[in-house]
Amino acid sequence: MNKYEEISKVIADEIDRNLFAEGDKLPTEKTLAARFQVSRETIRKALKNLIELGKIYNIQGSGYYLRRNGLHMASTLNKFSSITELIQNANLTEGDIEVQIFKRKPNDEEIGMLNINKQDSMFILERIRTANGESIVYSRNILPQSIVGQDFAEYYEPGSLSKYLELKYGIYIVESLMEIQAVREEDVLPYRLKLSDPPLLKFIQVHYDDKANPIYISYDYMRNDLIRFYVRRT
Amino acid sequence: MNKYEEISKVIADEIDRNLFAEGDKLPTEKTLAARFQVSRETIRKALKNLIELGKIYNIQGSGYYLRRNGLHMASTLNKFSSITELIQNANLTEGDIEVQIFKRKPNDEEIGMLNINKQDSMFILERIRTANGESIVYSRNILPQSIVGQDFAEYYEPGSLSKYLELKYGIYIVESLMEIQAVREEDVLPYRLKLSDPPLLKFIQVHYDDKANPIYISYDYMRNDLIRFYVRRT
Repeated sequence: MNKYEEISKVIADEIDRNLFAEGDKLPTEKTLAARFQVSRETIRKALKNLIELGKIYNIQGSGYYLRRNGLHMASTLNKFSSITELIQNANLTEGDIEVQIFKRKPNDEEIGMLNINKQDSMFILERIRTANGESIVYSRNILPQSIVGQDFAEYYEPGSLSKYLELKYGIYIVESLMEIQAVREEDVLPYRLKLSDPPLLKFIQVHYDDKANPIYISYDYMRNDLIRFYVRRT
Repeated sequence: MNKYEEISKVIADEIDRNLFAEGDKLPTEKTLAARFQVSRETIRKALKNLIELGKIYNIQGSGYYLRRNGLHMASTLNKFSSITELIQNANLTEGDIEVQIFKRKPNDEEIGMLNINKQDSMFILERIRTANGESIVYSRNILPQSIVGQDFAEYYEPGSLSKYLELKYGIYIVESLMEIQAVREEDVLPYRLKLSDPPLLKFIQVHYDDKANPIYISYDYMRNDLIRFYVRRT
């Protein structure tokens, strides 16, 4: 066994035994090199090995982080992407639980945001999105019946809503305008997500198709202990 | 007085008397047109008038919002801008209070993020940023002494740090990589900001100059009851 493999094994064992106290962050290359009395080159090989083993991941310019339970995800918000893509990019398996669909009249805000008729009806799709079985997002989508037809609830399929709109209706969702909010006392969350009281971020988005028409609204409460969010500002 | 001026006056009075119950949002154009028995064109003129009077502001695709106490701000995060600009764009007056500057050795994270030497020292600039005297952001900037020199604390001036770096050192901050976080229990906040227990968002940024060198780190706890944040995702 090479030196770097030995080191990688020691660290992997420590990760499995929850020995890293410092949040979810690994010590720096320099600190590890000093501890194991080897060059930083060797440490880098060991860390690369740990990444390949799925034990850690690297954030450019920030350091190495434990992939505890393999459940860490990251998203750069400038690029439009779905929750399905977020989960799949982390090599995790997505699921939908506690799915509810109901219909009601639009409120003034929705009429304004989606530029629809007061007489239209809205489908509300509520669900918890999971990654490898763990609840990571509570999501509420609001779609006009004039777009998805009155039998939406019967034909709805789990997974990406934007993908579904593409396949079934030929609607291509290509961008969104997102508002990011801190979660308030008055936000109502499903018991399952409140259970562990995780830090949450609230995303409110209007989704637009390739003709710049507003198509639907989404409210997503994202678990910030498992998903990290970045914005590149230029 | 024109019809639209009359309507604008009625609404302005109602705003001053806090008659709008529905959060901070104004009824839609359609609702207002029905209420005042005029065309939407006339309502739009009245709303434009209210914007010019500083009573309301418009968020594209979302609606009209009250500028209660004149203290509402909005920022689209894709574009790099300073807190000074955020405040000035809302025609408010900025201020700095509870300013503290101290010096310490860099930690491993800072060494990694700013690509600096372990022997360097870091200036920590902590302050509360105010808009028209109201505390809106608790801000912590971390700058290497190798960039600002050892007399930074003596020459520091209130206001925009990036502007200061530009004027005094010829360093042009043009972009940043920002992480957005929910505030955690363990985040330590100044008493003055915790007082009213406002919803907060935590922004962590590495700021880069026009040669793509990382220059400084900022931690900003932003009051989300007064400032709304948007991201355009494409």
